[in-house]
Amino acid sequence: MAASSSVKPVPLLKDELDIVIPTIRNLDFLEMWRPFFEQYHLIIVQDGDPSKTIKVPEGFDYELYNRNDINRILGPKASCISFKDSACRCFGYMVSKKKYIYTIDDDCFVAKDPTGKDINALEQHIKNLLSPSTPHFFNTLYDPYRDGADFVRGYPFSLREGVPTAVSHGLWLNIPDYDAPTQLVKPHERNTRYVDAVLTIPKGTLFPMCGMNLAFDRELIGPAMYFGLMGDGQPIGRYDDMWAGWCIKVICDHLGLGVKTGLPYIWHSKASNPFVNLKKEYKGIFWQEDIIPFFQSATLPKECTSVQKCYIELSKQVKEKLGPIDPYFVKLADAMVTWIEAWDELNTPSDANSAKKANGALPAAAK
Amino acid sequence: MAASSSVKPVPLLKDELDIVIPTIRNLDFLEMWRPFFEQYHLIIVQDGDPSKTIKVPEGFDYELYNRNDINRILGPKASCISFKDSACRCFGYMVSKKKYIYTIDDDCFVAKDPTGKDINALEQHIKNLLSPSTPHFFNTLYDPYRDGADFVRGYPFSLREGVPTAVSHGLWLNIPDYDAPTQLVKPHERNTRYVDAVLTIPKGTLFPMCGMNLAFDRELIGPAMYFGLMGDGQPIGRYDDMWAGWCIKVICDHLGLGVKTGLPYIWHSKASNPFVNLKKEYKGIFWQEDIIPFFQSATLPKECTSVQKCYIELSKQVKEKLGPIDPYFVKLADAMVTWIEAWDELNTPSDANSAKKANGALPAAAK
Repeated sequence: MAASSSVKPVPLLKDELDIVIPTIRNLDFLEMWRPFFEQYHLIIVQDGDPSKTIKVPEGFDYELYNRNDINRILGPKASCISFKDSACRCFGYMVSKKKYIYTIDDDCFVAKDPTGKDINALEQHIKNLLSPSTPHFFNTLYDPYRDGADFVRGYPFSLREGVPTAVSHGLWLNIPDYDAPTQLVKPHERNTRYVDAVLTIPKGTLFPMCGMNLAFDRELIGPAMYFGLMGDGQPIGRYDDMWAGWCIKVICDHLGLGVKTGLPYIWHSKASNPFVNLKKEYKGIFWQEDIIPFFQSATLPKECTSVQKCYIELSKQVKEKLGPIDPYFVKLADAMVTWIEAWDELNTPSDANSAKKANGALPAAAK
Repeated sequence: MAASSSVKPVPLLKDELDIVIPTIRNLDFLEMWRPFFEQYHLIIVQDGDPSKTIKVPEGFDYELYNRNDINRILGPKASCISFKDSACRCFGYMVSKKKYIYTIDDDCFVAKDPTGKDINALEQHIKNLLSPSTPHFFNTLYDPYRDGADFVRGYPFSLREGVPTAVSHGLWLNIPDYDAPTQLVKPHERNTRYVDAVLTIPKGTLFPMCGMNLAFDRELIGPAMYFGLMGDGQPIGRYDDMWAGWCIKVICDHLGLGVKTGLPYIWHSKASNPFVNLKKEYKGIFWQEDIIPFFQSATLPKECTSVQKCYIELSKQVKEKLGPIDPYFVKLADAMVTWIEAWDELNTPSDANSAKKANGALPAAAK
């Protein structure tokens, strides 16, 4: 049983997790991630011009989908996948056959912890996902399942088992995830504070979910991880992850699932252009004042026992309650339904884990 | 205007904050706090035998109340103040005439931050109290009002003003605040993780409030900061701060006030005896399984526009809903009313800040 010292240790969930990367450029950023990502399978969703060739560094195991692939695989249902916006990444969630997804932006690099050690972001996400969440009561020493921590005095014993964790939301050092107005007002602000905590976002509380550094359990919440209609032909951008965050939180609360935020950090290298962002965001900044109260008060009937049922119900409420704000929300509500139809077509609900990918879902550039 | 270099700088809120310390022993622990507490006024609540003399280090400005003082000042209403339990500290909140209170246990010392610097816990509490809270939406970069932080993308602009902060709950390095069963199971666990964060506990979420290192705005929430009936003659102990925490959270949520937790840390030096604690706690461990759902679903009518009105209403609900569990809760509900009566007697509601202390409230040992 003596293992050769040249054999790399098998990382956690090696065969149960896909890394989804939306991109428009060569993936040189993967070089820095090689020690942590090399043994995992990547799903690359190429945005923009499909005739462009995206270079992936040697040694990575990946499949790549461009717009032509998406159109071919989904047919008319491809309309629910955004174009010219990183929202297209959710196509990768749909074609994955793994239990877990980690998604990361291609301008995110390996961050260092306060001791100067490289942070294995994926490993921390996996730890977050594999330990329970505590949405029903706040633990003042943060994640009670971490080494060296526990539930404090006064934490009800009946709640100490926690609930399954569906989502792990990681943070960013260097360039913080600010909106365009804040970018404009504070162009030089950098996030240098390393907060050594993971915590559960309490039940009933919404949060701004960022898609830059995000992991989730596809089986538990995948069908709700739709990044909406953004970018090309849409009146709005940069709200793809926010939309998904509001939807998944309402559904997790309803189904008794947990959402964690905090560690791990990645190093966000480049601030996007605030003027371009302002153009993409301004309707969202206005609309979110109505959207957030809508999601805060949204309730799902107890008949909604699956993520799909919850999501279809939510789409109806979106159409009814947000439709009057702008015709965009009617289109979005319809796209939510299309998304679920497409998801179910590619994922046999009763056999999601072991199902072989349908032939039609093979990408042109599978390696 | 050149100040002499020997003049000590005036600390924040010097004349607007009292430090309340419940104790049964000489207050040698204050030596370590001298640089941070020296210029503030202390209210010492002596528990146990009133004939014992408590020594206070030279140079501190204080008033001291023992049981005889409490009985003399409150008369029959003194029954609402616990005896032989640190719950007696809330008498200090009542006789204070300041806007802010900081309360600390006498086994708590100055902690060091990760750079090795002594932490001025009181200064951090004051910062927490003087900046707003954000209970209506979660900010993933924690307190948005701290230097170097802000609201992240997707945070509604209409909520960025925040709400007034009523309570600042600090944490503990070294001995964590565990219940007796956890102490027994993990006798050697120490809290060594310094989490560099302050965050608002979201609206609708309860938390286990510890009284060891706690600050609050007396004007905003003082009358709800009642530590209940514990210790001598009562069937329960070590739930005084928990009781106050449940009550203040429900009332803060109703009145639109904020509760923060996180920094500052103090160094908690000594674990209390888990066997003694188990005896004090076991009914609480059992009862909290009903008490917490009660507080989670408690709602206050909109006529409750002051803390006093909220607290009286809550006392009625306690009697009605928790009374059936044990006669103790009927007694506690009555004590809640007595507490408010005593509070209002000592504090002219319309003029709380400037009112002179009634003659009757002068302690025997005022310095």
